[in-house]
Amino acid sequence: MAFTLDVTSMTERVVPAGVRDAEWGALDERFRTAHSAVVATAATGVYGYRELEAQRAERTRVVDFARSVQGSYDDVVVLGIGGSSLGAVALRTALLPPAWNARTVEQRGGRSRLHVLDNVDPRTIAGVLSVVSLPRTVFVVISKSGGTIETLAQYLVVRERLAQAGLDAARHLVFVTDPARGALRAIAGRDGIPAFDVPPNVGGRFSVLSPVGTLPAALCGIDVEALCAGAMVMRDATMGAELAANASGLFATLQWRAHTHAGQGQHVMMPYSDALRDLAPWFVQLWAESLGKCDVDGLHVGPTPIASVGATDQHSQVQLFMEGPADKTVTFVRVDSSADDVEIPRLEAGERAMAFLGGHSLGELLDIECRSTASALARAGRPSMSMTVGAADAWHLGGLMMWLMQATTIAGALYRVNPLDQPGVELGKRLANAELGHPDYAGGATEQGPAAPVVPSRRLRVG
Amino acid sequence: MAFTLDVTSMTERVVPAGVRDAEWGALDERFRTAHSAVVATAATGVYGYRELEAQRAERTRVVDFARSVQGSYDDVVVLGIGGSSLGAVALRTALLPPAWNARTVEQRGGRSRLHVLDNVDPRTIAGVLSVVSLPRTVFVVISKSGGTIETLAQYLVVRERLAQAGLDAARHLVFVTDPARGALRAIAGRDGIPAFDVPPNVGGRFSVLSPVGTLPAALCGIDVEALCAGAMVMRDATMGAELAANASGLFATLQWRAHTHAGQGQHVMMPYSDALRDLAPWFVQLWAESLGKCDVDGLHVGPTPIASVGATDQHSQVQLFMEGPADKTVTFVRVDSSADDVEIPRLEAGERAMAFLGGHSLGELLDIECRSTASALARAGRPSMSMTVGAADAWHLGGLMMWLMQATTIAGALYRVNPLDQPGVELGKRLANAELGHPDYAGGATEQGPAAPVVPSRRLRVG
Repeated sequence: MAFTLDVTSMTERVVPAGVRDAEWGALDERFRTAHSAVVATAATGVYGYRELEAQRAERTRVVDFARSVQGSYDDVVVLGIGGSSLGAVALRTALLPPAWNARTVEQRGGRSRLHVLDNVDPRTIAGVLSVVSLPRTVFVVISKSGGTIETLAQYLVVRERLAQAGLDAARHLVFVTDPARGALRAIAGRDGIPAFDVPPNVGGRFSVLSPVGTLPAALCGIDVEALCAGAMVMRDATMGAELAANASGLFATLQWRAHTHAGQGQHVMMPYSDALRDLAPWFVQLWAESLGKCDVDGLHVGPTPIASVGATDQHSQVQLFMEGPADKTVTFVRVDSSADDVEIPRLEAGERAMAFLGGHSLGELLDIECRSTASALARAGRPSMSMTVGAADAWHLGGLMMWLMQATTIAGALYRVNPLDQPGVELGKRLANAELGHPDYAGGATEQGPAAPVVPSRRLRVG
Repeated sequence: MAFTLDVTSMTERVVPAGVRDAEWGALDERFRTAHSAVVATAATGVYGYRELEAQRAERTRVVDFARSVQGSYDDVVVLGIGGSSLGAVALRTALLPPAWNARTVEQRGGRSRLHVLDNVDPRTIAGVLSVVSLPRTVFVVISKSGGTIETLAQYLVVRERLAQAGLDAARHLVFVTDPARGALRAIAGRDGIPAFDVPPNVGGRFSVLSPVGTLPAALCGIDVEALCAGAMVMRDATMGAELAANASGLFATLQWRAHTHAGQGQHVMMPYSDALRDLAPWFVQLWAESLGKCDVDGLHVGPTPIASVGATDQHSQVQLFMEGPADKTVTFVRVDSSADDVEIPRLEAGERAMAFLGGHSLGELLDIECRSTASALARAGRPSMSMTVGAADAWHLGGLMMWLMQATTIAGALYRVNPLDQPGVELGKRLANAELGHPDYAGGATEQGPAAPVVPSRRLRVG
């Protein structure tokens, strides 16, 4: 049960634009300053994602609830978007067996399937509703504010379907929302719908270890206590002010330094593991939405996170990473041992292109491909780092997520932005709400700020 | 049945760094030069992805084969990676109903599920093999060269399982490979395994309209003739030398111009449609692997494609697109009408946060969100363009894919690179093959080019 972060290939000893030996002192200093800023901000109580002990009671409620309804549902359907869905998807991919939703109830040992509806596309919601059996389905409606229009629209559709089927809303709906305010909280109180708390000091993209992530996971039998235990170990190891001893500090500082000092502002997250594949999009939201904004001087800053997966993307994006502009770093996430490794049989001995594969295992092949890609990148002068975990299990996944959330907090201080807000999405939201007739935006779309000029369209029609 | 490309918000009339009115003449000229280069190269016969008439016989074989085995298989499992898998995934997501693999055989009307194994992770292949019933499964093994080690390793595992189950390989395997050469072609001949051709002049990432994409699709009942019909209409509309009339030329030229003249080299592909969601990763491979390389002067060039999806990513990456560095363009793909729209019921009239939603539809909401995001980006000075299709059906999907393949070919000429090669992935491949003991790389990893220097590791262990 361990994590190993290797940053050798982020240094000048391996790649030309890497950290020079003489530069570490300045980076230590810069990190120490950022760390002080984080400590000062932490005192205001805004980093609720770290307070996993304080959230134990609610976590126990989640686990107890999941136990109490065990066997009642074949399908769990999450209605949520962004921070309210990406965590559940990452947990599903990592911690439920592959092709989970394609399994029969017997193949799942009676555990529930997990569908995540993270968009308002009518085709998807109609499709999923046509697949599940409503009497055997629970819908987990997740909106911290209780005012997310996409999620509320889905809720309204589902609520009507339940009523039409004569089903009790209190047995087929569960809410995850703010403990005190918002429409979902009010409806839960009115109708006796079970509701779990998103702590007010935990924002959407930092909420995977709250009921936002743990409730859907627990309903499918995932060990959420192990998830949080791994996260707490990582948290405790990433609180200190010494750069060389802080895995989150190292990640954040080296990414920030690569961006601001070496023009490498595109940060690729590349797990070599199907289980950890959806950790990458979860990280993309975390890194993009937390850091891509105006800094204290009003400058537009922020790295571009890029989701990738190995070995698959060796046949795709790796060409660009190797030979395109030298503006990227790559972070590999590797799994040390594979409990379920599969040996490649010694067949087709006469075929030169495959005979040599026999006797190796798929896990070994995956690992060799990861090391070969890292080595090839290094030889091409492209920086990378590598995080190796003991297993792709709940404990390590919790640790990985905490590692990246802590890194994001520190990166906020390095980039001098507030990693907890998202002012840039407000305008689009205002425009949409105004057009939909939301009473708080009654002025209409044109009053939501300076309008774009009306110009002649440049359009081309084909077909 | 039509496509409309609107590039108004790529111009200076809307966004500050956009195309100036006076600049169109120079862009016309630059495109014309690129077009001439493409025409000259086309004469050498390398753009096989366009030759859909010449491939009609093979396509008919695909359709006939799929018809002949109809009802024989509950599961189609594709073994392929990169260009051999991303197309099938995009077709599945767009053209099979949502949650397809979660459906029972009755819910699927007897049609097959489609699993795509695009990695060598042992957990995934073991998981999928534990879910399907081998006697009711066909494995489609796709490797143009017949030498893709990941795919061949998967093939060896599957072949042994079939033998252990006493099943006839010729009834449970189908190959898609080069018509004349490679290990798969040889085995097909030896064992009577059905095999379909990847035309020699069609590379992996341009192969979705060949049996690489059409065979898995046809086996699941997708109309591959409609797919290719839409592609042919788009192809014919994107052959000309007049920029304003060539939708692929416009896309390529405006992206290239944004990159090289305005520092906007990150190109976001953002369908507002769950059906078209996996068009984005397919495009990412196409754009990244075709353009990210050394140009004729040996300079490292190439844009970074970024996959996104609306409305989902309004709660994720859009913050970065709006307020981060002004280094991106966004391409929206919208679907004009939604045959299966879902009305939002008039419920919860007392809840201010949701009452206004009642009476709208989900499709309308999705469309309003797309327009609001485009408008917000424009007001923030961020360029975007918008491609609208009449429906998310096979005909339009074929057209969209051809639009982007043609654009990639033109972009290759603009960036002055060969869009058809991928030299940057060779080193990693050589290193992996050497370590695995491939006879053609017998010199070992250290002889595959200058080794990275041996330096002291910088490692940090947690837990």
